[in-house]
Amino acid sequence: MPLSVRIVLVETSHPGNIGASARAMKTMGFSDLALVAPKEFPCAEATARASGADDVLAGARVVASLSEAIADCGFVVGASARLRSLPWPTVDPRTCARTVCEQAAGNNVAIVLGPEQSGLTNDDLGRCHQLVHIPASPDYSSLNLAMAVQILCYELRMAQDSESGVVSGGEREGREAPLATAAELDGFHQHLEAVLSEVGFLKVDHPKQLKLRLRRIFHRSNPDQTEINILRGMLAALDPRAQRRQRKHK
Amino acid sequence: MPLSVRIVLVETSHPGNIGASARAMKTMGFSDLALVAPKEFPCAEATARASGADDVLAGARVVASLSEAIADCGFVVGASARLRSLPWPTVDPRTCARTVCEQAAGNNVAIVLGPEQSGLTNDDLGRCHQLVHIPASPDYSSLNLAMAVQILCYELRMAQDSESGVVSGGEREGREAPLATAAELDGFHQHLEAVLSEVGFLKVDHPKQLKLRLRRIFHRSNPDQTEINILRGMLAALDPRAQRRQRKHK
Repeated sequence: MPLSVRIVLVETSHPGNIGASARAMKTMGFSDLALVAPKEFPCAEATARASGADDVLAGARVVASLSEAIADCGFVVGASARLRSLPWPTVDPRTCARTVCEQAAGNNVAIVLGPEQSGLTNDDLGRCHQLVHIPASPDYSSLNLAMAVQILCYELRMAQDSESGVVSGGEREGREAPLATAAELDGFHQHLEAVLSEVGFLKVDHPKQLKLRLRRIFHRSNPDQTEINILRGMLAALDPRAQRRQRKHK
Repeated sequence: MPLSVRIVLVETSHPGNIGASARAMKTMGFSDLALVAPKEFPCAEATARASGADDVLAGARVVASLSEAIADCGFVVGASARLRSLPWPTVDPRTCARTVCEQAAGNNVAIVLGPEQSGLTNDDLGRCHQLVHIPASPDYSSLNLAMAVQILCYELRMAQDSESGVVSGGEREGREAPLATAAELDGFHQHLEAVLSEVGFLKVDHPKQLKLRLRRIFHRSNPDQTEINILRGMLAALDPRAQRRQRKHK
């Protein structure tokens, strides 16, 4: 079965890059493209740069938010040019491709690339299970967006091609259930934040970094759906509002 | 010593591809570019697409023939999109990069890419020690010229970095703090279980499997000491006994 991976381009400025990305994807056998709030699309320049990959463009889903683009995904990788103030699990494209091949067996998988100038925000980052960093020259690391798509898709194809016989040496874990989707993880984090605000652990003034740290802990764990249900059940039990209700009923 | 490899573009039709190739080279740390009879060069479009790599363009040597471009080279690789009627030693970009790294220790090395439409002629081919074939989808293998340069240079950088021990291929996460010790993790789980028993989520009768699942979630995340402190703080805030104490003090 061919590997299916979604490429998500967030707030792309140059339509030419969207077209070139579609072409890069198709040359490596990928077609699932999602565009989050592109500056200009559809656009003649995108079509021109797509060359023979206009079908990938035509099939691209345009959505308003990253969470919408990855809602059904169990594994989300973010492409990051910079190292972050808050370190996040980061791999090179080769390791990323092996992991994606493994995860794609039972889950929808997305690779997310941010806007050309600024890259992914911390908020986007908080939705990723892993970051992929393409090695580049320290003197000039200005990799074009579509070039990054090309390298990542090339590594996916190489991994897929070599998967047949070769054991990857990567971690295989044997999950009991499909991984929680991005929407399910979001639901959990909203629940967690609500409960933590209720008990005064999350304050309104500067909860940003703390929320991101909590996201990192649970994204690194990459819970499956059974586990998310356990965590949700745990939160429901811990919620002081629920406890007050219980006391009333006694 | 940084790896030195010459990229040779033969009879390139679109100046934009020359500029994009220069940028692709520079992002991966390469700067030796030779242009064999380019259709149009120098050219504003090339400069525009080169972005910050205009120094690579400015330093490009324009020559009339391939033999001139590779005269001083001890090892020449030709990029080939198609398989040839005349079989030639052909490798994938990864193997190519390893060979180039070896050869570049004592030789000038070039990688040659043909015109966009037609690729290398048999005559060009006859000057190459090896061909490199970039894997592509059988349905659509129309890889853009500069994209091919990007993939080849990326593989060279990966090979070079792994030779010098820069990348191990593994996960590089940059933790901010030492990982939590087994004792710290145990302490956290005892705390978690105490709080969850207090709110009735963990029952005495069969909590075994559930406790184990909770352990797995947090062990998989492998928290560091800062994170364990966050989690412990969270538990303290969620503990209904603490909340009751708080209410009393109000």
